[in-house]
Amino acid sequence: MQSAVYAAVGQLVGAGQRDTMTIPEVADLAGVNPTSIYRRWGSIDALLGEVAVAALTQGEPLPDTGVLRDDIAEWASVIAADVGRPKRRAYLRAMVAARDDVVEACPCWEVRREQAEEMIARASERGEATPSVRQLLDHVIAPLYHHAVFGLAVDDAYVAELVDDVVAMLGAAPGSAGGR
Amino acid sequence: MQSAVYAAVGQLVGAGQRDTMTIPEVADLAGVNPTSIYRRWGSIDALLGEVAVAALTQGEPLPDTGVLRDDIAEWASVIAADVGRPKRRAYLRAMVAARDDVVEACPCWEVRREQAEEMIARASERGEATPSVRQLLDHVIAPLYHHAVFGLAVDDAYVAELVDDVVAMLGAAPGSAGGR
Repeated sequence: MQSAVYAAVGQLVGAGQRDTMTIPEVADLAGVNPTSIYRRWGSIDALLGEVAVAALTQGEPLPDTGVLRDDIAEWASVIAADVGRPKRRAYLRAMVAARDDVVEACPCWEVRREQAEEMIARASERGEATPSVRQLLDHVIAPLYHHAVFGLAVDDAYVAELVDDVVAMLGAAPGSAGGR
Repeated sequence: MQSAVYAAVGQLVGAGQRDTMTIPEVADLAGVNPTSIYRRWGSIDALLGEVAVAALTQGEPLPDTGVLRDDIAEWASVIAADVGRPKRRAYLRAMVAARDDVVEACPCWEVRREQAEEMIARASERGEATPSVRQLLDHVIAPLYHHAVFGLAVDDAYVAELVDDVVAMLGAAPGSAGGR
């Protein structure tokens, strides 16, 4: 049932019906009973939030180039290409709209945190200086998402600037490094 | 008429009706003719976008402490306190929702850009090393807005970390400084 429901939500988001879709519509399109959707997800916002997280965090394996800077650049570039697509932007905005009810940590952000932790841990093992996980999230992911959500440009040149910036932070303050 | 309409929109946003308000409702509350609102703003989304920009960018004068780092810290702290308020968050999300139609540069972002330019120009005149305007926007404003929009914490400790980060960038790469 989950994949049919996810696909139906994706189809409605793609058709520009993100803000207006209802559980009966999703149920009809997915060929399942609306009651089952109500029982499992509770509300259309909860369902939409879950599908958005799934859509935004699935995808390519984490880069492992052997050099942290290159890992970050590749990681950021995949995310930028992803959030730059209109349908993904619609999902991102759906996440934002769902935030009023979801006061817990944003699950989409949590996936990025785990990925940042893994890349930084590998770099530390290799003896590289590293930014903290927070720095990677705040200075690479946040600006990318911010640009995407507000309709600003998210291109390769922009990604390269962000990567330069986060690497520059590193060189300046070795005391603040170490993958915290 | 503008102030009555802005006040009516503000009242409806405050009452949690951001997503459902209509032009006739706003007109009724403001005591103006709906036709005048349609003629001037065209749609409820355009009106809501304009009010959101006004709400998000009005306020305190730009800090002028004589030291760029302190200017940035004060500026960021005022913005953080502002976007951390539920009503302002609602406005920010209204801006995000309006983005589908508004492909031009986000006006709210433009106000922050002008403020960053002014603080950096003053610091350059004093002979201080400065980050670029883009760096200030991407690494202080974007993470603050991102946190606010996604319901993550926006407190003084967080602001202090962002300020440290952008100052660290400076020290590391003097070649990239200079207020570009």
